[in-house]
Amino acid sequence: MIQQYPSQLLEKAVDEFAKLPGIGRKTALRLVLHLLRRDADEVERFVGAVGKLRREVKYCSVCHNISDGDVCPICSDHSRDGATICVVENVQDVMAVEATMQFHGLYHVLGGVISPMDGIGPGDIEIDSLVERVARGGVKEVILALGSTMEGDTTNFYIYRKLAPYDVRLSVIARGISVGDELEYTDEVTLGRSIQNRTLFDGK
Amino acid sequence: MIQQYPSQLLEKAVDEFAKLPGIGRKTALRLVLHLLRRDADEVERFVGAVGKLRREVKYCSVCHNISDGDVCPICSDHSRDGATICVVENVQDVMAVEATMQFHGLYHVLGGVISPMDGIGPGDIEIDSLVERVARGGVKEVILALGSTMEGDTTNFYIYRKLAPYDVRLSVIARGISVGDELEYTDEVTLGRSIQNRTLFDGK
Repeated sequence: MIQQYPSQLLEKAVDEFAKLPGIGRKTALRLVLHLLRRDADEVERFVGAVGKLRREVKYCSVCHNISDGDVCPICSDHSRDGATICVVENVQDVMAVEATMQFHGLYHVLGGVISPMDGIGPGDIEIDSLVERVARGGVKEVILALGSTMEGDTTNFYIYRKLAPYDVRLSVIARGISVGDELEYTDEVTLGRSIQNRTLFDGK
Repeated sequence: MIQQYPSQLLEKAVDEFAKLPGIGRKTALRLVLHLLRRDADEVERFVGAVGKLRREVKYCSVCHNISDGDVCPICSDHSRDGATICVVENVQDVMAVEATMQFHGLYHVLGGVISPMDGIGPGDIEIDSLVERVARGGVKEVILALGSTMEGDTTNFYIYRKLAPYDVRLSVIARGISVGDELEYTDEVTLGRSIQNRTLFDGK
């Protein structure tokens, strides 16, 4: 419905916002008009922070997570267990696992999963560097914590084959019913996995 | 849940995105990580377009709509009816009315509505400049096209009193059931208004 912009500057800014995922032209216009109502220095802060991040972003040379320095705070924390590596797809996943406070090892951020449909092969993600970390020794367990999708499963299997020559325990996070879920609303594959992977109930 | 950012640059960019209306921290992170995956010059184009708009934005000296020049394309279009002014709250509303292709007059963009709760009084929006436009003569009709809210009604009434001394027809857009709506799902106030404001049915 909305097509005629009164200003080319406005239209260009809307165009740029509308390129972001999940942002349609109507939302883009609303966001741009919101920025127009804000103080000029607040908007400079917004564009400054985004531009600076893109120009100066670094990735941890160990785990490939986003980092301000050469090595990220997690990899340089010597109180963490360097013998256990949790393999995740992206930064959000590191933050999600950290939020559980159940993991005290290090991470390896693949930066994606193998997805032939999207043209992403093993060479496009950080698998070789994972193998190198393991080959260097000192790693006892690699935990695969990718999403439970076709692409995640493919990537798990590829890593499994790549790590086969090394003396390292390879595990995968449990698939099962979510905490708080009713059985009747759980899909049958998940429910089947949760029965296969049942654990001993010790009354706790 | 998500709190520990691996990078301060990342966190600052997320902070800025999360200040936008309707964007939570999780969405902000997703948008920022999307920008990180894009080419650096694409991101420069994004921040450039937004920054340039905020720095160089102008408002039409006649109708106060956003404009690249001193007078907007609508106000400088002499084929339009300068005797009819449609009063709207903001830029989106101009675009929405334009999209109907039912209006061929000029606009007056208030830049808000009177809202004591938000500390917005008559002096904070472009009412005086509307009165000046009418006082200058040549205006036959002012159409009030504000939202059907308490604030819109208050603003309508304030403009009504301000324009009372002038020989100008004041009208308000019709309130009624939406095209495609069922009667049983229409609220009673709207339905009542649609009966009060019924128009002659001529079979068309």
